[in-house]
Amino acid sequence: MKIVNFHENVNVKRDVDSGTKEQQNSVLTIIKNVQEQGDQALLQYTKKHDGVDFQASELRVSEEEIKQAYHEVNSEAIEAIRLAIVNIRDYHERQVNQSWMTTKEDGTILGQKMTPLDSVGTYVPGGKAAYPSSILMNIIPAQIAGVKKIIMTSPPLSNGKLAAVVLVTANELGITDIYKVGGAQAIAALAYGTETIPKVDKITGPGNIYVALAKRAVFGTVDIDMIAGPSEIVILADEQANPRFIAADLLSQAEHDELASAVLVTPSEKLAKAVQEEVEEQLSRLPRKEIASQSIESYGRIYVVADILEGIHVVNQIAPEHLEVMTKDPLRLLGKIRHAGAIFLGEYSSEPVGDYFAGPNHILPTNGTARFSSPLSVEDFMKKSSVIFYTKEAFDHQAKHISTLARLEGLEAHARAIDIRLEEQS
Amino acid sequence: MKIVNFHENVNVKRDVDSGTKEQQNSVLTIIKNVQEQGDQALLQYTKKHDGVDFQASELRVSEEEIKQAYHEVNSEAIEAIRLAIVNIRDYHERQVNQSWMTTKEDGTILGQKMTPLDSVGTYVPGGKAAYPSSILMNIIPAQIAGVKKIIMTSPPLSNGKLAAVVLVTANELGITDIYKVGGAQAIAALAYGTETIPKVDKITGPGNIYVALAKRAVFGTVDIDMIAGPSEIVILADEQANPRFIAADLLSQAEHDELASAVLVTPSEKLAKAVQEEVEEQLSRLPRKEIASQSIESYGRIYVVADILEGIHVVNQIAPEHLEVMTKDPLRLLGKIRHAGAIFLGEYSSEPVGDYFAGPNHILPTNGTARFSSPLSVEDFMKKSSVIFYTKEAFDHQAKHISTLARLEGLEAHARAIDIRLEEQS
Repeated sequence: MKIVNFHENVNVKRDVDSGTKEQQNSVLTIIKNVQEQGDQALLQYTKKHDGVDFQASELRVSEEEIKQAYHEVNSEAIEAIRLAIVNIRDYHERQVNQSWMTTKEDGTILGQKMTPLDSVGTYVPGGKAAYPSSILMNIIPAQIAGVKKIIMTSPPLSNGKLAAVVLVTANELGITDIYKVGGAQAIAALAYGTETIPKVDKITGPGNIYVALAKRAVFGTVDIDMIAGPSEIVILADEQANPRFIAADLLSQAEHDELASAVLVTPSEKLAKAVQEEVEEQLSRLPRKEIASQSIESYGRIYVVADILEGIHVVNQIAPEHLEVMTKDPLRLLGKIRHAGAIFLGEYSSEPVGDYFAGPNHILPTNGTARFSSPLSVEDFMKKSSVIFYTKEAFDHQAKHISTLARLEGLEAHARAIDIRLEEQS
Repeated sequence: MKIVNFHENVNVKRDVDSGTKEQQNSVLTIIKNVQEQGDQALLQYTKKHDGVDFQASELRVSEEEIKQAYHEVNSEAIEAIRLAIVNIRDYHERQVNQSWMTTKEDGTILGQKMTPLDSVGTYVPGGKAAYPSSILMNIIPAQIAGVKKIIMTSPPLSNGKLAAVVLVTANELGITDIYKVGGAQAIAALAYGTETIPKVDKITGPGNIYVALAKRAVFGTVDIDMIAGPSEIVILADEQANPRFIAADLLSQAEHDELASAVLVTPSEKLAKAVQEEVEEQLSRLPRKEIASQSIESYGRIYVVADILEGIHVVNQIAPEHLEVMTKDPLRLLGKIRHAGAIFLGEYSSEPVGDYFAGPNHILPTNGTARFSSPLSVEDFMKKSSVIFYTKEAFDHQAKHISTLARLEGLEAHARAIDIRLEEQS
């Protein structure tokens, strides 16, 4: 892991894969076919890409499959999932914004009405590893927002089933409207609807390049969460921090994929060297060491800075998805941190604590977008409507100014909509 | 204006102009040149598109120009602008979400930190008509969010100046960092920065197709507000409503542009006919009657429904940008309205009241996106960061479940980041 002295600019931004022309075109074709042929297209693509030959009636997961899944997941896992659900619900319930109104003596009522989205579709990636935490983080905020219809889609395994832990996790959340469709065809189905899969208003959840391109293509027709970029962690630490903890946390990020970025920022040369050694040492024993070492090689950095304040400057420049602060009383620094998706304070707030369990959402702005974006939250599943109620009294007092502004903009019909209400009274 | 009986589906969606290949390419070229040549490119495009031959030093509006502008705007206008500012500030101040935290007995602290964006750029369209209300609606929420750096750009008139009312409005808000650049080159400058124009984190404000395409192109590098589609109004009214008011309000929407949509939904045949006549009658006397009649012809509709409940069903299907409810006690219906950007209740809550003066933002989700989007608000200029602080005690209690979940997902390094902290203690 390279140790570099900090000079003015740091940049760990990585190019987000926007797909090849071929990939883009095939995604557009898939979307078009699903729009035109509905279930038929889904069945064809599922046969082609997942090697499973379904009838339309088999697209939806059956109660039997869900019951069956519980036999394949051990009780420790189910207990951990249930405890995580409690924590994640508890945190997200605090995010709910209420509708509000304000009244004036002239009778005016102004307000902001909060309304949950009607329907949401969550995409769950298939493949070897299943990610129950992703299901919890996508669906719990929508449930707390009050979204009535929440459906899930995920590509079937070669045996025509979904991973047991995926079904168990969904069922623990009360989600039973689950479809065995993946890829761009699943996103198209959620955006436009088919005979079997209902159209939704918003699509969330991670996926491969085809899923990402499809989400980008249907954005506007429906809402989407975000196009997640590669994941990153920055750890800000001083000389008293534990190098073994830091190395382990850096590697937990690096094992995600080769584009992941793990960065240590510290004023301590001594700590820098110790972490460098620990990373080598721990890396050698990791099952996913190929991926992790590739990531450390390409995007792993140790920045040595003059002091903690300069370190914070570096952090704010990077605007990391995850920030760990392992310094003497880290809370003291919270006010100075402007740009980070999630902030982990102290040596026991390891990133995995937040990835799985603590409660805050793990779907976070990546690749520097924490400068202007936020973690996925309950708000992302509600929308606001302004409410305006004017009385005759309020109207009469203000009419003159309103028509003045309308005419200032050359919009005479706007002005006349005001004037006509004054005439009517005289 | 066509009267149609409602059957199952209504659709007033219009195609959003995504530009010709030529327009898309020229925008990408402009962005590239501004990135590479900075101010030089701005000056060239300003000469080419606006016919003004600036020095770099002239791009920024001078104090003198602002002082001058006050001589060209009458006092009624300035008074109206100042009163609008008071109302708009008052409403938006109520939108501010506070940072919060929660503590547990085991020492855990979880929180959500609200941070304003560092910098925002507002685009103000040029051309014949100036829109002071657009400046107020874009900038006031950013100021209340606490954004420190707010800059404005707008294309110069042929005399090398900006419209006086634009400068006065900006100055009334305390905005003096104003640049005379328009089109895609202005958006590129805000996204990447030049010698004269600083890079910002978010770009808001309406513009022509080139501005819209440029915003779409730089989205991701910076945040943007939205790509506004054509504007629409739906009025839900019963037999007691005043047809003259309704017609005037429909026309105030129709005069915006040929793509604007004005729709009346009513159970009353009698009202439908009366409004139809009134629209013809008032339309003939409008200065912008060509635009308005084109809009009414293409997208103006009167839907006759069985009753008010069916009317609300139609409204929720359309998810209009603006909704006026002119029925007997309209507040009674508020709970049933799920999808609308702004809801105007009662016969004195004419749309222009909200466009200019009442306080809520007039930048609203158009073309059906109110199903999942919200009015521009203070929140759009702040972002959240999750905060997680775990004590040793909290960690020790939960460590087992966290590593269980990590291993369930096949992420061993995540699990080891937990385990290593347990070893350290034993």
